[in-house]
Amino acid sequence: MVGLALLGYGVVGSGVAELLQKNAAHIEKKAGGKIGLRHILDIRDLSRTPYADLATQDFSQIENDPDVQVIVECIGGVGTALDYVSRALRAGKHVITSNKELVAEHGAELLAMAKERNLNFLFEGSVGGGIPVLRPLAQCLAANQLYEIVGILNGTSNYILTRMLHQSASFDEALREAKSYGYAESNPVDDVSGRDACRKICVLASLASGRHVYPAQVDTEGITQIGGSDMRFAQRNGYRVKLLGRAIFREPAVCNVIYVAPHLVPEDHPLAGVHDVFNAVWIHGDTVGEVMFYGRGAGREPTASAIAADIIDTAKHMTARKWLGWDPSDSRERLSPVELPSVWYVRTAQGGQLTEPMTARKYDAWARTLPKEPEYRMRVL
Amino acid sequence: MVGLALLGYGVVGSGVAELLQKNAAHIEKKAGGKIGLRHILDIRDLSRTPYADLATQDFSQIENDPDVQVIVECIGGVGTALDYVSRALRAGKHVITSNKELVAEHGAELLAMAKERNLNFLFEGSVGGGIPVLRPLAQCLAANQLYEIVGILNGTSNYILTRMLHQSASFDEALREAKSYGYAESNPVDDVSGRDACRKICVLASLASGRHVYPAQVDTEGITQIGGSDMRFAQRNGYRVKLLGRAIFREPAVCNVIYVAPHLVPEDHPLAGVHDVFNAVWIHGDTVGEVMFYGRGAGREPTASAIAADIIDTAKHMTARKWLGWDPSDSRERLSPVELPSVWYVRTAQGGQLTEPMTARKYDAWARTLPKEPEYRMRVL
Repeated sequence: MVGLALLGYGVVGSGVAELLQKNAAHIEKKAGGKIGLRHILDIRDLSRTPYADLATQDFSQIENDPDVQVIVECIGGVGTALDYVSRALRAGKHVITSNKELVAEHGAELLAMAKERNLNFLFEGSVGGGIPVLRPLAQCLAANQLYEIVGILNGTSNYILTRMLHQSASFDEALREAKSYGYAESNPVDDVSGRDACRKICVLASLASGRHVYPAQVDTEGITQIGGSDMRFAQRNGYRVKLLGRAIFREPAVCNVIYVAPHLVPEDHPLAGVHDVFNAVWIHGDTVGEVMFYGRGAGREPTASAIAADIIDTAKHMTARKWLGWDPSDSRERLSPVELPSVWYVRTAQGGQLTEPMTARKYDAWARTLPKEPEYRMRVL
Repeated sequence: MVGLALLGYGVVGSGVAELLQKNAAHIEKKAGGKIGLRHILDIRDLSRTPYADLATQDFSQIENDPDVQVIVECIGGVGTALDYVSRALRAGKHVITSNKELVAEHGAELLAMAKERNLNFLFEGSVGGGIPVLRPLAQCLAANQLYEIVGILNGTSNYILTRMLHQSASFDEALREAKSYGYAESNPVDDVSGRDACRKICVLASLASGRHVYPAQVDTEGITQIGGSDMRFAQRNGYRVKLLGRAIFREPAVCNVIYVAPHLVPEDHPLAGVHDVFNAVWIHGDTVGEVMFYGRGAGREPTASAIAADIIDTAKHMTARKWLGWDPSDSRERLSPVELPSVWYVRTAQGGQLTEPMTARKYDAWARTLPKEPEYRMRVL
């Protein structure tokens, strides 16, 4: 029997509780033993949920319960979540989270705390929701020198871009629709600003390079400036518009360029076929060539699927810890793509056009020579 | 230091030797120690290769070398390969292979031998070449009840179908071209007959269900009967033609339908965008929803990438064995899709048409009522 406590009974937390119950026999078989949910911490009143008798608002009750070995954090953010996760590790509990902000901002320190105490700190659900991507990257591609990772990492923005392209919706219409389907939060600023995608490409780049890459190092541009004419240009010229997180590696495994920005993606690129709320991570390695992982990148059930996989893996590694992580980094310098050459899509009052391949630095110099500054520009992948 | 022996210095074997050398420092870091290649067994003369001093033709030399802990089998087939792998396990050596025929036909017995002796028997490269798929399926989707696995599992046939669809090549032209690029073997019968895809869907179904599923249980149909008019019908009506391996599961994890056959795949299905020699495995689980793994399904380097990942994983699990496998099955009954309803594409002398959804049994009864028997038929996915 592995004793579990759940922090947060929101969308993801309630999904985890439900999944542990629904697929209990199956999960027990895979984990090699029963998973017993002992506490659910939430500031809300849980007396009308099926878990009323497990509810608590006092973290110290969980921290001090010797029968809790594993803590699943589904609070989100880096305030309370960081405090509780740190205390959980100090109390000798294994920790599982899908909190990308926590991992992107504090992964290295939490991983170090876990390592010191021979504890698991797992976070498969923090990138790509239910899509298996962190384990495959770390384990199955372990023999590869990686060149590049490119991901469609935010479902809300991909939904908006898909609607704008295929249904000629405006940005505002598409966003309203995303909200009405529950894809976008009431405050979707992290989605449309690229900040959410930024956290996820940081987690991927950290894992791939073995050194923490921080969101502050990442040039991040969102999708709010994309208009109907850009979409029409893409449509006519064989492109899709996608918000991409992109990390490029120098041998040996060092991330030297990382950024988030909308791109024109050629129709025959595998990322071009990733529509609606789906996410995908495309990876290029020296030996494997191109691989891509595709699926639902967010949502209650897919994220619960990833967390439950981490729970099973933790149950199988209670003493011999599973290592999936990276080391701290001293550097916080920006890893800007300014020297990365691309073909650029440029929108001027006269319409759209594509440039020759050039770096951002060259592009800026070139744009200044135009009679009027371009209204908008995007890289072509 | 982990001592390694390589059986077979063909396309894959030489790729493994080269990768271990090329990325040695990187692999050593990931494996937590040096990997030392001690023997290469091949019936050919290796005196002009860089490994002349490791060459042997005598397996007993490897079997009896106490410094060999891991044996990598790259011979292929189930004759010598089965003999050597069994002897290797009996001699207490961990075994890694990418031999899908060996795993599909004898996986259960070899897994049992490995389990008994606390040894690793790993075979990530047997399905999808370098694409991480077996570990993600077994580990990351562990909490899911799986409904279905559908794969484009043979690169040669996918290349031929892509050329026929996009360049209007005939089957024979496309096959000749595949041979000229080295994609197809001089004898490509296993590729175009579906037999190769059959072995791979067996490995996937066995892993997903936990019970061995044998190739003899699988209705297998190849691509040799597909003609230009079928391609034109697909093109005009928004489909791609793909050779699919398909396994459907009944809860709890029991594979009750498995088959290999060409299908019309709707253009908006993620498998429709998998072109040329690329492979992909699409999986539907109760919690994760749809996920897909995509990449180069075969070839020297991608397969070497998968084998090297298994080597690294074995090096990290020399005492605590990594379990990725299934149990034997008493049953060898066919798991035919005869009761599985589909829309059918039917080619008659009058041209192509689609039917209402119906089972194969019903389809056969319906086809007999036609004035003339249809020339060809395919399921629509």
